[in-house]
Amino acid sequence: MTQFEIDARLARDSRHLVDLDLCELRLMEDSRWPWLLLVPRRDGIEEVYELLPEDQALLFAETVRIAEVLNDVTGADKINIGALGNHVRQLHVHVIARLETDAAWPNPVWGVGAAEPWDEAERDRFVFRLMERLS
Amino acid sequence: MTQFEIDARLARDSRHLVDLDLCELRLMEDSRWPWLLLVPRRDGIEEVYELLPEDQALLFAETVRIAEVLNDVTGADKINIGALGNHVRQLHVHVIARLETDAAWPNPVWGVGAAEPWDEAERDRFVFRLMERLS
Repeated sequence: MTQFEIDARLARDSRHLVDLDLCELRLMEDSRWPWLLLVPRRDGIEEVYELLPEDQALLFAETVRIAEVLNDVTGADKINIGALGNHVRQLHVHVIARLETDAAWPNPVWGVGAAEPWDEAERDRFVFRLMERLS
Repeated sequence: MTQFEIDARLARDSRHLVDLDLCELRLMEDSRWPWLLLVPRRDGIEEVYELLPEDQALLFAETVRIAEVLNDVTGADKINIGALGNHVRQLHVHVIARLETDAAWPNPVWGVGAAEPWDEAERDRFVFRLMERLS
């Protein structure tokens, strides 16, 4: 098996939180939305159907679990899930908590305005609650 | 089990192609992109984690299969998959074939411009090839 290497743009735009069975769970460096990424630790994969069947099942299980936990922690009005990859081809799944009052509602968040950095204490609190629910 | 009823906006914006084990497979009434919808035939479900575990597995299997078939039929540069639901709350998954030359690339297609109707003969050819690969 080749060594997994995270795409440079994903590495720049998000921070590593924890390794799940298949995926790196990462937090986007943008405080406008509680916005997580799941990145399967497999090299050379761009589409879900390129994963091995057992990895496909893991990816879906981890996506569903993260969506539910993110919803619990944020009290979101809607969870948005997307695997697009038009900019970054390395397979990654976005899981985003949306509020009907947020800056992009009801449109998707991708490409909207400029990222706003997290307040560190707020980010720590959010990540702590997320990790607590995940463990 | 309650009778499944498709959301009125989904019914207006897309047409029924075939029933898979879990989902209605539908084609968006927009010729700008080969754009499919998977709608689980379950009432009252808005988020993937609200589905029963066996339905979650079916939804993912059908999404992966449709993504691969759509890619084969279109020769897409990228498949976009998304479950957003900000406008229509009934759970539905978008599977969209993207080309680097298409009208929205590299942005998402949601909310871009106005839908353009399919030429009927072109739509028939596309659906025929899709059904052929699915069977």
